[in-house]
Amino acid sequence: MTPPDWNLADRTLAYQKLEDHQRKVGDIDHACAILDWDQAVIMPAKAGASRADALSTLRGLRHQLATAPELESLLGEAQVEAGKGLLDDWQRANLNELSQQYRRALCVPRDLVEASSRAEAHSEQAWRALRAKNDWASFLPYLQEVVSLKRQTAQALADALHTTPYDALVDGFEAGITQEQIDGLFNDLRGFLPQFLQACLSKQAKDKVVELHGPFPIALQKQLGERLMAAIGFDFTIGRLDVSHHPFCGGLPRDVRVTTRYKEGDFTSSLMGVLHETGHAKYEQGLPDRWLGQPVGAARGMATHESQSLFTEMLIARSPAFLKFAAPLIAQTFSDEAASQAEGFSAHNLYTLGTRVRPGFIRVDADEVTYPSHIILRYEIERDLIAGKLQVAEIPDAWGALLQELLGLSVAGNYRDGCMQDVHWPAGLFGYFPLYTLGALIAAQLQHALARELPDLNRQIASGHFKEIDDWLRAKIWSQGSLLPSHELLMRATGEPLSTRDFKAHLQARYLDDRE
Amino acid sequence: MTPPDWNLADRTLAYQKLEDHQRKVGDIDHACAILDWDQAVIMPAKAGASRADALSTLRGLRHQLATAPELESLLGEAQVEAGKGLLDDWQRANLNELSQQYRRALCVPRDLVEASSRAEAHSEQAWRALRAKNDWASFLPYLQEVVSLKRQTAQALADALHTTPYDALVDGFEAGITQEQIDGLFNDLRGFLPQFLQACLSKQAKDKVVELHGPFPIALQKQLGERLMAAIGFDFTIGRLDVSHHPFCGGLPRDVRVTTRYKEGDFTSSLMGVLHETGHAKYEQGLPDRWLGQPVGAARGMATHESQSLFTEMLIARSPAFLKFAAPLIAQTFSDEAASQAEGFSAHNLYTLGTRVRPGFIRVDADEVTYPSHIILRYEIERDLIAGKLQVAEIPDAWGALLQELLGLSVAGNYRDGCMQDVHWPAGLFGYFPLYTLGALIAAQLQHALARELPDLNRQIASGHFKEIDDWLRAKIWSQGSLLPSHELLMRATGEPLSTRDFKAHLQARYLDDRE
Repeated sequence: MTPPDWNLADRTLAYQKLEDHQRKVGDIDHACAILDWDQAVIMPAKAGASRADALSTLRGLRHQLATAPELESLLGEAQVEAGKGLLDDWQRANLNELSQQYRRALCVPRDLVEASSRAEAHSEQAWRALRAKNDWASFLPYLQEVVSLKRQTAQALADALHTTPYDALVDGFEAGITQEQIDGLFNDLRGFLPQFLQACLSKQAKDKVVELHGPFPIALQKQLGERLMAAIGFDFTIGRLDVSHHPFCGGLPRDVRVTTRYKEGDFTSSLMGVLHETGHAKYEQGLPDRWLGQPVGAARGMATHESQSLFTEMLIARSPAFLKFAAPLIAQTFSDEAASQAEGFSAHNLYTLGTRVRPGFIRVDADEVTYPSHIILRYEIERDLIAGKLQVAEIPDAWGALLQELLGLSVAGNYRDGCMQDVHWPAGLFGYFPLYTLGALIAAQLQHALARELPDLNRQIASGHFKEIDDWLRAKIWSQGSLLPSHELLMRATGEPLSTRDFKAHLQARYLDDRE
Repeated sequence: MTPPDWNLADRTLAYQKLEDHQRKVGDIDHACAILDWDQAVIMPAKAGASRADALSTLRGLRHQLATAPELESLLGEAQVEAGKGLLDDWQRANLNELSQQYRRALCVPRDLVEASSRAEAHSEQAWRALRAKNDWASFLPYLQEVVSLKRQTAQALADALHTTPYDALVDGFEAGITQEQIDGLFNDLRGFLPQFLQACLSKQAKDKVVELHGPFPIALQKQLGERLMAAIGFDFTIGRLDVSHHPFCGGLPRDVRVTTRYKEGDFTSSLMGVLHETGHAKYEQGLPDRWLGQPVGAARGMATHESQSLFTEMLIARSPAFLKFAAPLIAQTFSDEAASQAEGFSAHNLYTLGTRVRPGFIRVDADEVTYPSHIILRYEIERDLIAGKLQVAEIPDAWGALLQELLGLSVAGNYRDGCMQDVHWPAGLFGYFPLYTLGALIAAQLQHALARELPDLNRQIASGHFKEIDDWLRAKIWSQGSLLPSHELLMRATGEPLSTRDFKAHLQARYLDDRE
């Protein structure tokens, strides 16, 4: 019989016992990741209540394991082992992550973890049904329960970590990022974006754009998506593509599950969504084998994660070079439509279509110029919500005012395309939104650094050669897991701290100067 | 904040604390059921190793919960409560099931549970790849490991339950069934089947059969399957139909997952498979709401379960009455093929096709006359395997000898269609096979009893009216969960103990006397 590997008494180093213990925690995370994916993609309509219970129990058990009493002394002993030089860099970094994970887990009581998990599952399920009906009033109590529990969690974390509640939540998604840093970067963008948007709109008013006409059969869209995913390096032996209400990248590093949604009349939005999620997926698939299941082997954080999806979508897939490569494959896929719309299916026109700037209601459909405004809007609302300065019932009004101010649009009465459009808040994800725009800044900074090292970058992309790009990203980001703090990871990859400079330069080059 | 419902100190009755505790065990079962289904249907090819680890950890945690030290005294106190008349019939039956579950769990050490789970997951994954290659030699060590662990488990159970190892395994699938009872029933069938088979073959040699010619597009087969599933009462709001390597019915009572596999050249085998699994599914969907997650609310056992699938497939779906109802829907689905093969698509011909008796290699493709021989073969092998009288390496020879004796066929060198054809042994399911044929006996007995109460049974089936049949099954079987011991459930439903009489009478009527 195989001896159990979780017996903490068997191994010599306290550090090793921590790794063994963490493997069990990782196994519960595995189960939750698949059950979450299943709930969003596969689960029959009325199976939600028992799924919510099951996830709540698993998260409770995870919390129990993550706060096991023996961890306190093991973490202390392992620190001593680290001090004696018995641990290598990765082990020390892992120990550091394990300590932080333990401290975060310890300060949130298990009943709060289980209640939050259940409330978030119910709220997400309710959101799926009620968003379709534009029914904010019925959804309100679900979200109030989620926010009430989230405020308690944030306060408990803030007390223990000596920080503010909102910072404590952001820290859970990408350690070290603070509200102060976000405010600085977002204020800078707020000063730049309004005039830039107006300049784009004036310039693009003169562009010649040929609209594409479908239908584009969903089976063919799926086939095209899978073909381009494979071309840019997604490994289908450890991943899948499926359909869900809201596109996401879920699953596990060696079982990555990308989802999208299709519209028969338009293939571009689904295709760009697929390539965006593929950026996330390649990061997961590129994480180091040796450290799977340990926190040091996980992606650095959600801002870094978003940098990988935006790098793939915005900087690769929407570039003229990529569309030179992809246009013939797209035309081949939709051969009937392409035959009668040759000009529409040209690389140049696909590029023009894919970089059109138009203020709109929906974040996930937004172009990269207006996207940060969607984020700033959500950030300001959730920041005040967690601080208790704003109540859940006041969200629609706050949303309306900010949308008017930032994008000049009115969404009054349309909750579906307003404050009910995203899964994040229904699912309890607060402190996550600002990381999308930090990701855009990081992506631009990475591209700037990569272009210095690969002068023929665009030629490689245009010929469908992505290996050197991936090798660079693998070396700088993917293979590093969580070895380094975010700011140091970025410093080593790009030589500079996080700033808005390269992002603004990229927008200027692409949208005003036609320099790509 | 919702108060935690698992706090054992909060509730008054010890019995209630047991129910609360069991709910957590049920939540882990929920996770395992979905992860198992996902592994068979959805999971990418190379994601198996981490899935095996995750399932092993979950089963270890389940075992830890199921053997929690406080259960011993709670079970004792609850027995006292039962003695004082504080519990109703369902609660007493549930307590009885909880006690048995505890006793079974307690005698198997957690490391054996985890090792078995991991070995079975690896073995099942290896089987998927190696069966396709007909590679018995490479598969052998996987199965040896599974059998070695299973013998240890069976011995541990046998010691604690004062029974034999094989009986202890069978008892885990349907409590109260013993090797002695199986031997009696199977010897009876062995005396009846050989001549009966010969008589069938002679009689059917004169039948006029029109073969059907495809292709039958898989999308249409799926549509037909879903249509007939819905017609006979499968609820798609709490269930799904998907594709897997080996058809099964998995998931949970309120999230039932039926799978099938399709061949373009033949729709009948997949369709009958779907209707078979739908019989299992309707039992699950019909289990009582109030007792979900408690053992008394689960299906009585796998023989009773198989009776429901065989009732649906053999006694309903393959009957002349059902094919009168289904033939027009089938012809409508495959309208191109049906137009040119009118005689082939007639109800009479579909019935003749669906009741053809032909000895063959594959159990799941077998007709109901030869099916018991496939079971007797497997039963005799696994019985001797668990008793240590037969070794894993000897399976192919034993298989060959029994197949020759029981069905007059030789499968030498063809492991794929011989001893590697079923998922059961690779997945560690020993003691399960005989229950298929016990299920066939129970199904025939149920039909005999039902026909007494519903004299126009065939007319109802022919007009697509299944409600009264379902109402009867729901009242007699589904809604009863595990309230009664198997033999009493059957006595109350049919007025008689388990025997071969009605099964033999059914075969006689359908295959020799044309009385249906």
